[in-house]
Parts: sequence; C-alpha cells; structure tokens
Amino acid sequence: MPDQQKDATVHLSLDEVRDLAHAILTREGLGADHIGPVAETIVAGERDACASHGVYRLTNCIRTLRSGKVNPQAHPVVRPSASAVVRIDADGGFAQRAFDLGLPLLIEKARTHGIGLLAINHCVHFAALWPEVEAVVAHGLVALACTPSHAWVAPAGGTAPLFGTNPIAFGWPRPEGDPFIFDFATSAVARGEIELHRRTGKAIPEGWTIDADGNPTTDPEAGLSGALLTFGGHKGSALSAMVELIAGPLIGDMTSAESLAHDDGALASPYGGELVIAIDPEGILGDAAAGHVARAEALFTAIRAQGARLPSERRFAARRHTPQTGVDIPRALYEELAAFA
Amino acid sequence: MPDQQKDATVHLSLDEVRDLAHAILTREGLGADHIGPVAETIVAGERDACASHGVYRLTNCIRTLRSGKVNPQAHPVVRPSASAVVRIDADGGFAQRAFDLGLPLLIEKARTHGIGLLAINHCVHFAALWPEVEAVVAHGLVALACTPSHAWVAPAGGTAPLFGTNPIAFGWPRPEGDPFIFDFATSAVARGEIELHRRTGKAIPEGWTIDADGNPTTDPEAGLSGALLTFGGHKGSALSAMVELIAGPLIGDMTSAESLAHDDGALASPYGGELVIAIDPEGILGDAAAGHVARAEALFTAIRAQGARLPSERRFAARRHTPQTGVDIPRALYEELAAFA
Repeated sequence: MPDQQKDATVHLSLDEVRDLAHAILTREGLGADHIGPVAETIVAGERDACASHGVYRLTNCIRTLRSGKVNPQAHPVVRPSASAVVRIDADGGFAQRAFDLGLPLLIEKARTHGIGLLAINHCVHFAALWPEVEAVVAHGLVALACTPSHAWVAPAGGTAPLFGTNPIAFGWPRPEGDPFIFDFATSAVARGEIELHRRTGKAIPEGWTIDADGNPTTDPEAGLSGALLTFGGHKGSALSAMVELIAGPLIGDMTSAESLAHDDGALASPYGGELVIAIDPEGILGDAAAGHVARAEALFTAIRAQGARLPSERRFAARRHTPQTGVDIPRALYEELAAFA
Repeated sequence: MPDQQKDATVHLSLDEVRDLAHAILTREGLGADHIGPVAETIVAGERDACASHGVYRLTNCIRTLRSGKVNPQAHPVVRPSASAVVRIDADGGFAQRAFDLGLPLLIEKARTHGIGLLAINHCVHFAALWPEVEAVVAHGLVALACTPSHAWVAPAGGTAPLFGTNPIAFGWPRPEGDPFIFDFATSAVARGEIELHRRTGKAIPEGWTIDADGNPTTDPEAGLSGALLTFGGHKGSALSAMVELIAGPLIGDMTSAESLAHDDGALASPYGGELVIAIDPEGILGDAAAGHVARAEALFTAIRAQGARLPSERRFAARRHTPQTGVDIPRALYEELAAFA
C-alpha cells in the first residue's frame, strides 16, 4: 500500500474495533448492559465493509448521547399484547438492547403461531436493519423489518419533507451458505450521499432531491435544504408511507415528522418505533417446509446464472476475510473519535 | 357526447356489467359458486374505473377456462396449519372463492393473535389485489398482500425473464372516509402497457424493457420478446424476489417461472399462491389503538396539503359516481365478448 494511502487510514482488527467502540461508549456514559449490543452493531458494520454503518456511526451515538436524546440507562420492558405479538418498551434507549430482549420472544411466537410480530417502542435507531433480520433468519425463519426515521423525504408529487428514509429489510433462510437478505432505504439515496457530494462540490443526479420550492435540483446544497425524493416514484412513495404507518401509529409510535420535531435541532438519531415480523415456514407447511425452502434455491441459481447479484453478496464476501485481515478506518474519522473522547 | 365516440362505446349500468359477467361465466361453464365472486371482481374493476381490471379481464377468464388451466368446479378446503395461519387449498380454481372462504378465518386469527396469515394455494389469480386488502381493511385491520404471476420480468442486472409482475398491495383503515390503499406491480409497467404501444406503433420509454439479448430497448416488439424490468432498479428487483419467495415456496407454491412452465403456452392467467397478512391494531395497543390510528390522519393531511395524491384516490372518486352514471365499455371489447359467447 502506498505510504500516502497508509497514512490516510488506521488499520484495526475487528477486536480492536470492538475495543474502540466499548471505550468510546463507556466514556460517553452509556449503561453497561447497552454497550455490548451497540458495539456489536458497529463491529458488524466494519466486518461487512459497510463503512457508513461501522465506526463512523459512533459519531451519531456520541452526538445522540451528548444531546440527551437517548436514555443511556434504559431498562426495556415487555408490555401486554395479543398472543402472537411481542411489544417492548425500550424506555428511550438504543434499539439494540430492546431487540435482544424481544428476539427470543418473537422466535417463540413465530414457532408457536406460525407468524409473530415484534413492536419496539420508544427506541433510538441509528443502525441498518440487516442485523435484526439476520438474527431472525438465523433461527430458520423469514423476517421483515422496517422503521421510520427523520422527515427528510417528500412524498411523490409533494414539495417538502414528510417521510423518513424509511428502510425496509427482508431475510430468507437458506439451507446452505448465506441467507438472502436485503435492506434498503425507500429514499432515492442516503442523505449521507448528498452530503458527500456537497463536501466535494459535485452535482447530484436528477431524481435525488427537490429544492425548498419543490423543484428538481442537482445542487446538493439546495437539495439538503429541500427534500430527498423516494426511489421508484409513486411506488416507492407508497412503500415509504406504509413504513410510516406500520412502524409508527400501528405500534403506537412516532411518524418521521414527529421524530424530527422531537429532535428539535439536536441532530440526534431518529426516535420512535421499529417493527419486525417473523414467519415460520413450518407453521404454514409442517414437515413439507424444508422441501419448499430448498426449492427456492432454483430462484437464486437462476438470478446468478443471468450474471445478476443477490443483495448483500458483497457484505457476506467481506465477512469472510475481515476477521483475518482487519479493516482500514479513515484516519480523520479515527482522530475525530479520539478527540471526542 | 359526439356520435363517433358514442358509437365506439357501449354504455352499461353496473348491474348490466354484473349480468354480462354472469352470463359469460355461466356459458363458459364456471361452477355456480364461483360465478358470483369472480363477477364481483369484474364489477369492482368497472365501478372503480380500472378499465384493465374490469370487463376486459373476462377475456382472460374465458381463455383460462377454455385452456383447461383452471378448475371450474373447484372446492376450496382448509388445510392444517399453525394457530395464526389459515391455509386454503383452492383446488385449482379461481382465487376469489378461496379468498371468500379464508377471509373470515383470517379476520378471526388476527383478532385472536394480533396478526394472522392467509395462504391460498393452487389458485388462478387474474385480478388486482386491492379487492383482497380492502376486504380485510373493512374489518378495521391493516392488510398486506402479494402474489407471483408469470415470469416476464428480469432481475436487476439480469438479462432474461425470471420474476412475475409480482404486485404488492397494502391497506390501512381510516376512521372516516376511504381507507389508504395501494396496489402496484413491482415491474416498471404492466405488460399490457407495452402491448398497447405495440398495437399503436409507438416507442416505449427507456427503463421498461430489455430485448432478448438483455440490452435496453424502446421497441415494444423487442421488449415483449425480451423481458420487462422492475421498477426502482435493484430495490424493486429485491421486492419482486421477496414476492416470489413469500407467496411462492414459503406457502408451498409456485414461483413465476414455475407458473409460466405450467402454463405451457396456453396464455392462461397465472397459477400458484397468494399471501395475505392481517394485523389488528388492538392486538398491539389494546384500547389505545383507536387513538393512534386517528393520529395517522395527520400523515394523510400533510400529504394532501403538499398537493400530492393518496394512492387509490381516483378509484374511490370513480366509485362515488359509477353506481349512478354507469360505465362505457369499448364496443370492440363488448362485441369480442359476445362473439366468444
């Protein structure tokens, strides 16, 4: 590696990433039983070469902790609900600890009833959703997850921010090898992509944003003070509205507009609800389930035979080498985190 | 109305649409207990000014009945499954009768357990999905539905048909007025749109299709012998794959490629499974549900305040006048149906 590139990055093993995350979260006053779950999300991001969901996200955690918009000592509790539903009140804490509490209950609901629904309320969500769906899929179940965020995205045909970037994630267990997992924002692009263009002074493609007057713009500055657009026009917009509804009011929690109002300029991570649905193929098909799940392999084989990729392939590929090779963190980010400390 | 336009259409009341559908389906040998449910789907299409899902669809029904690819005397039965799951074997018949059998059971599951899943197997599905989600939403529940179709759509990055047009429909109950309903194909466009361009000799927009070599094309003829694309690039493609999986192997039924192979050139409607999930807000929130569902109204108000439309608004608007005004059917279609008879 050339010296210049070497200087621009700091090489860390995944254990060192974990130590870094633990050290920073401890210094920032996060409760002991939250540090592990939150740190593992950071490690998973680096392990999968998702730079935007790795160590970089610690800056969000720090900002959120310092703003007082997350409860560092939250004690998640189970609330009453119908028999196939698990409802967890995260007590204003980061979502990870609440999810860890809810996961075994959700698995049990899905195994007992064929389908189960996990509603996490009053949580701060700063991460991707694939850790959640992968955790469900590891039990041989099918998973669907979504969460609102902050109101940065305009509805199709609209002129101003209303929806969050509202990710949808899905997971399907495969008998061998990596599961089928996708996780995408219903916005045309991540807000961070536009910020990156602004910093480097580059125009953004059409279809990403509108300006404050609701007109299409390729100026990242104008786009950031206007609104992002959804992916896929009115269809993506409809899906984004669905996420607002089913991971918002349906589970008694905030919409993205309410989350942004709650933030009140703190620039903390979104606050509100998260919805995870788990389905047990055996609850539908009994003993025949394994045969049908195996039959789905023909679909994946056919996708690959066309030269197309399965979603998350790159993440799983990275996962096979980063435990040995470690990862490179931008030095500027590394020093920013150290300065915080 | 000018004479020429008048001559080009036949004016029918909705009752006359119903009578026409009953007469044709009876003549085509459809079993007595299927005729009502199938005819009501046709009437609903005309009532909502969805020309492509109205009387026009009777041509699909006729072709499917005459090809022997649907069982006209099907007796749907309930199969064993876990407690929150309803599984109906449609016995090779049209989906409507099976759905009517499953609907009250699904509602009861959702009310009892908070969430319920309806899997319909071995059915022929030729209609939109909004009739199903609207039927669930009428009970105050949230609904999600999907079904594969025939393999006409290429995965993102691929070169050949593999996925169906794979619609996803969603419904949300509203305390007053029309529910929030969307129902869209995960293909960039309906196949019928491309056929319409071919018949009128018009080029199609980029992004709709690829040709038989996997290259983008604006020639409808080349697109029809190649493959449709999904909406929204790799995100729409991921959703289409999800529909294949959860309304295919998860419920023990066909993928779109398997359905097309089963069709074997008959040009009948797709054969396979349909998945409907129903969620009861009260199963999650108890007595607090109504208040939160009412809070969702702020989202719809905000969408409209931006000048954007809610999905299905035009359908609901049509529904308010067609029972009085009736509908205009293209004369050529009307005569084609008569000639069939």
